[in-house]
Amino acid sequence: MENQIHRIGVLTSGGDAPGMNAAVRAVVRTAQDCGIECVGIRRGWNGLITSDFVQLGATSVSHIIDKGGTILYTARSEEFMTEAGRDKALSTCRLLGLDGIVAIGGDGTFRGALALSRQAAAAGYGLRVVGIPATIDNDIGCSHYTIGFDTACNTAVECIDKLRDTMQSHERCSVVEVMGRHAGHLALYVGLAVGATAVLIPERQVDFDQDIVEKIRQARLAGTTHYMVVVAEGAGSAADIGKRIHEELGLDPRVTVLGHIQRGGSPSARDRETASRMGYKAVMALVSGQGNCIIATQDGRIVDLDMEEALQMKKSFPMERYQILEALTLSGSHRR
Amino acid sequence: MENQIHRIGVLTSGGDAPGMNAAVRAVVRTAQDCGIECVGIRRGWNGLITSDFVQLGATSVSHIIDKGGTILYTARSEEFMTEAGRDKALSTCRLLGLDGIVAIGGDGTFRGALALSRQAAAAGYGLRVVGIPATIDNDIGCSHYTIGFDTACNTAVECIDKLRDTMQSHERCSVVEVMGRHAGHLALYVGLAVGATAVLIPERQVDFDQDIVEKIRQARLAGTTHYMVVVAEGAGSAADIGKRIHEELGLDPRVTVLGHIQRGGSPSARDRETASRMGYKAVMALVSGQGNCIIATQDGRIVDLDMEEALQMKKSFPMERYQILEALTLSGSHRR
Amino acid sequence: MENQIHRIGVLTSGGDAPGMNAAVRAVVRTAQDCGIECVGIRRGWNGLITSDFVQLGATSVSHIIDKGGTILYTARSEEFMTEAGRDKALSTCRLLGLDGIVAIGGDGTFRGALALSRQAAAAGYGLRVVGIPATIDNDIGCSHYTIGFDTACNTAVECIDKLRDTMQSHERCSVVEVMGRHAGHLALYVGLAVGATAVLIPERQVDFDQDIVEKIRQARLAGTTHYMVVVAEGAGSAADIGKRIHEELGLDPRVTVLGHIQRGGSPSARDRETASRMGYKAVMALVSGQGNCIIATQDGRIVDLDMEEALQMKKSFPMERYQILEALTLSGSHRR
Amino acid sequence: MENQIHRIGVLTSGGDAPGMNAAVRAVVRTAQDCGIECVGIRRGWNGLITSDFVQLGATSVSHIIDKGGTILYTARSEEFMTEAGRDKALSTCRLLGLDGIVAIGGDGTFRGALALSRQAAAAGYGLRVVGIPATIDNDIGCSHYTIGFDTACNTAVECIDKLRDTMQSHERCSVVEVMGRHAGHLALYVGLAVGATAVLIPERQVDFDQDIVEKIRQARLAGTTHYMVVVAEGAGSAADIGKRIHEELGLDPRVTVLGHIQRGGSPSARDRETASRMGYKAVMALVSGQGNCIIATQDGRIVDLDMEEALQMKKSFPMERYQILEALTLSGSHRR
Repeated sequence: MENQIHRIGVLTSGGDAPGMNAAVRAVVRTAQDCGIECVGIRRGWNGLITSDFVQLGATSVSHIIDKGGTILYTARSEEFMTEAGRDKALSTCRLLGLDGIVAIGGDGTFRGALALSRQAAAAGYGLRVVGIPATIDNDIGCSHYTIGFDTACNTAVECIDKLRDTMQSHERCSVVEVMGRHAGHLALYVGLAVGATAVLIPERQVDFDQDIVEKIRQARLAGTTHYMVVVAEGAGSAADIGKRIHEELGLDPRVTVLGHIQRGGSPSARDRETASRMGYKAVMALVSGQGNCIIATQDGRIVDLDMEEALQMKKSFPMERYQILEALTLSGSHRR
Repeated sequence: MENQIHRIGVLTSGGDAPGMNAAVRAVVRTAQDCGIECVGIRRGWNGLITSDFVQLGATSVSHIIDKGGTILYTARSEEFMTEAGRDKALSTCRLLGLDGIVAIGGDGTFRGALALSRQAAAAGYGLRVVGIPATIDNDIGCSHYTIGFDTACNTAVECIDKLRDTMQSHERCSVVEVMGRHAGHLALYVGLAVGATAVLIPERQVDFDQDIVEKIRQARLAGTTHYMVVVAEGAGSAADIGKRIHEELGLDPRVTVLGHIQRGGSPSARDRETASRMGYKAVMALVSGQGNCIIATQDGRIVDLDMEEALQMKKSFPMERYQILEALTLSGSHRR
Repeated sequence: MENQIHRIGVLTSGGDAPGMNAAVRAVVRTAQDCGIECVGIRRGWNGLITSDFVQLGATSVSHIIDKGGTILYTARSEEFMTEAGRDKALSTCRLLGLDGIVAIGGDGTFRGALALSRQAAAAGYGLRVVGIPATIDNDIGCSHYTIGFDTACNTAVECIDKLRDTMQSHERCSVVEVMGRHAGHLALYVGLAVGATAVLIPERQVDFDQDIVEKIRQARLAGTTHYMVVVAEGAGSAADIGKRIHEELGLDPRVTVLGHIQRGGSPSARDRETASRMGYKAVMALVSGQGNCIIATQDGRIVDLDMEEALQMKKSFPMERYQILEALTLSGSHRR
Repeated sequence: MENQIHRIGVLTSGGDAPGMNAAVRAVVRTAQDCGIECVGIRRGWNGLITSDFVQLGATSVSHIIDKGGTILYTARSEEFMTEAGRDKALSTCRLLGLDGIVAIGGDGTFRGALALSRQAAAAGYGLRVVGIPATIDNDIGCSHYTIGFDTACNTAVECIDKLRDTMQSHERCSVVEVMGRHAGHLALYVGLAVGATAVLIPERQVDFDQDIVEKIRQARLAGTTHYMVVVAEGAGSAADIGKRIHEELGLDPRVTVLGHIQRGGSPSARDRETASRMGYKAVMALVSGQGNCIIATQDGRIVDLDMEEALQMKKSFPMERYQILEALTLSGSHRR
């Protein structure tokens, strides 16, 4: 069984996330340890289309475990979404003799991988694909955790801690926008970690009066003179919310959009450790002859899930944590 | 049911851990939110013995979520281990009218809590106790995760990243000792996260030749000229290991003992978030009329476990991660 | 001479800066060491007008040296700019029996202090004032260095390092706006420290084609595929510059406004050390019977300058560092 | 004049220091900007002896400004201290056609450079050398500031801040040893920045009773229950001092030796900026036809000093800062 795999490709695709390099390193080193050759595909799926690749030996990935970004570069590929694009990609796979591909990225990346594998199969070419979830949004249905989330949370928390210093000195209100176009995981986690006055997430309809105005009022009544409002990108614009706070409460909020800072930085211990284990597991899944799969964390463990099924999974949002957040603010939940 | 609890005490005991303040804050704020009064007991169990306490309102715990250490101070108490000591402690509980105590610390702390509760029950006094696991060693049987572990890992990783810079410039070997007298969780996690050449843990017998000498040799053969050996306190002294490396390989290793640095620092996002949820859950367990319990993480979820049963649980060491570590070093596992 | 001073006030005013707390601590501790009482005035000059103060003993300032912001709060005071406002402030000074005031802030703060001292003198009341320069903009004429600048530079550099990770992975252009409404010190310093492709400062007319377009082109020709443009607030809006880069070069820049993050955070070693020495020097100037003065750094030394003269001084902008920056970019200065 | 220089070498020697890479980058980029070729000599002077070098173009030094350590590696060379060793080095210089060498390091490095230049001159070969001071000890006679000092101070301060968290929680005494075998600059700077109870430096005879015992006592009397003693390597062993504190005061101090951590890490804004300007100045000194020189900071400015004279200079120790430190502790200076 093991000898079915001789050479694999590894790529990073979609938005980058801290820890991608640790995952690449783990894939390359595990492959090497199993006697499998490894080719780095650059710039996501585009690299397969344009034959943009590099051979990766064990030392090619030395000293990258602590680096943010991805040494393989990343990109989104329109062309790969077409059958014609994937045909070009398959030509490269054939030319290089790839038996499998480890794709590090998000749901879009995995769907692309699956489409490629199917197109290959239809052409009589056995190409197995394994996905490793990496996105700071932590919004991948099948996996409790995605690489990069922890680092992004720590970065956001460190920035907001700094903001709080100056908000406290000036007795001001701060409105800070964190990433999360469709998901509030980051905003809620960060909000809990900084002890935010209020958190706005796309998963929950905002009642401005209840969720912002009243909370700031209660905090003021409890004795505080500065307030921290955390907004997920997808729940509204920090600028708009700041403006409305000004209109309704007369405060003069300072607005900060953390932006791409959250995507960079040396990965945290957790992201490096998780990425290392996921990268190892990905190669092991290929070695063990498993079909297309996604490496995921479930119930605190790293598992491999059938890719097709995994892509159907929906992640439930931990809304009870929103209640915890409310209970822990000075406004308190029971007093509303 | 809910009104059985009117006033509770909260304390931190044993070695301190980053995130203890976040847990204290969560206990106090949740209590307040439930209409329960909260008394902070200072210096661990000693505070109950010597009546060293402070009333805690919601604003007493403002601006502590981001602070290392514990505002309640901590200590180990010999006297509390005696029945006479616990009798004194019970007098304070009675005087203050405490219905429950939330004790934040490690196994020793919880055993003390249980003994106190039993002694109270024997005297006809209903005192319920809840434990929250907090220790950087992550060595509590019933809980996958303990508050402080993540921050300690990040601190160790950041220090070792710095060490690596200078080791690389000078092409040296570094031997770094991390905390963990009885447990290698921290050492192994950190070792994976920094891409260590070798990791020594108390859970695994060290074969110096195989586990150190040979790994350094293989790394050198693969082209590296610096090496990072991570040692858990309980697996040997970094100084001794450095000396032996010198003797057997002729290298001149630099030895670093990270020491108490690992115990301090602003808690990471994960430790703040987890501590907040655990503190909330602890008060909720009291409110819901539950008996003595420990708040634990199991299968990625925060649960409350019967304290007596929880104290019997043993944590299995994730030895498969040691194999992953070996596969990911330049020495590789299959080549041995 | 020494016994002329019995009691002094200390305040922070204007925009806050990391290190203000270290300066407050030094003032209080030095005063205590000289047998002088110290009163903390809260919320800048407003505190003198509204009698908002607190007595500060040596232990009141324990554990603040490492904290961002200011424990005395800060504010701008319109009322203090009027004679009537300063009259009220003087009443408080008289009531408290203040012989001197140490004012930590910027030029506006110092001008207010001087006006107050003069108004006091006119009323036959000897009130000596000492200024300590603290602003992250480093734009105070008389002092080479101002407290907070170093921390702000480090914060900006750390953020931009993170941005670079993701810009590099995605091969993008980043436009990042740093503070500095009227001064480019921060932008130029940070630009040098991150190896920016281009830096825009208010002290230098921007030739968009030469200063941005051509530099990005040269960097691309030299082989780079990501670019970092640093803009001082006062030299233009990052959003506008990003838009224009898009129009003229077809790139799709990511825009980040660092904002108030730069104002917070635990002060750097340099800011703590400098603030400590400046605070000490300020009290010593009062003790030695010196008139109104500003504590400044000149030629690498901390000196006290006559306040009136100091307020006339203009700081020359180190434009030669802009040339250095140009020489160090991939575009190079000689190749233009 | 300018065209006398066609090709130069650059090397890092002695102990590494954060910012060395920024200096290397500045040398290479400035050289390129002036039309001068640049050769990187690896492993200090050894590289000249063994012909261990690499050609450096402008892009070879991309993305190193933020990296600790040195991409050129560093080492101490016994052989280079001999005339025979330097003869070999000169052969390499001749072979490569080097007109000048920029040597980044400490006093020993500069003395080696001067000896090499003289030996070259004696052989009728014009080889001009320029030194750039880089050492975390800040102990170079001719320069107020040396590259790496600021980063090392910040690293030490961050570590000690963490230590303080746990010392405060446990009400303990901490003895922490910082680098500085012959110089107390780092210890005193850091001691001021962390608000140490006591600081021991080699420049000042220690009176254990006055300088340690009495200060801890005064701090205790003033209400503190934790103490931070900072020791420069050259002023005694932290372990010994901890032991003596235990004997004389009955405390149970925790001892930490920060060690090589202080030598690594991403350089601070100040170290990057200073290194960039010094590297630029070094090449400009060569271009302008100046003789052997050292780039130094004096009176807050970067200057080039005749190397021979510069090597005679002695740095005065800022002992007045020790008095400031004493005034700012809770013990106070006047109460002794």
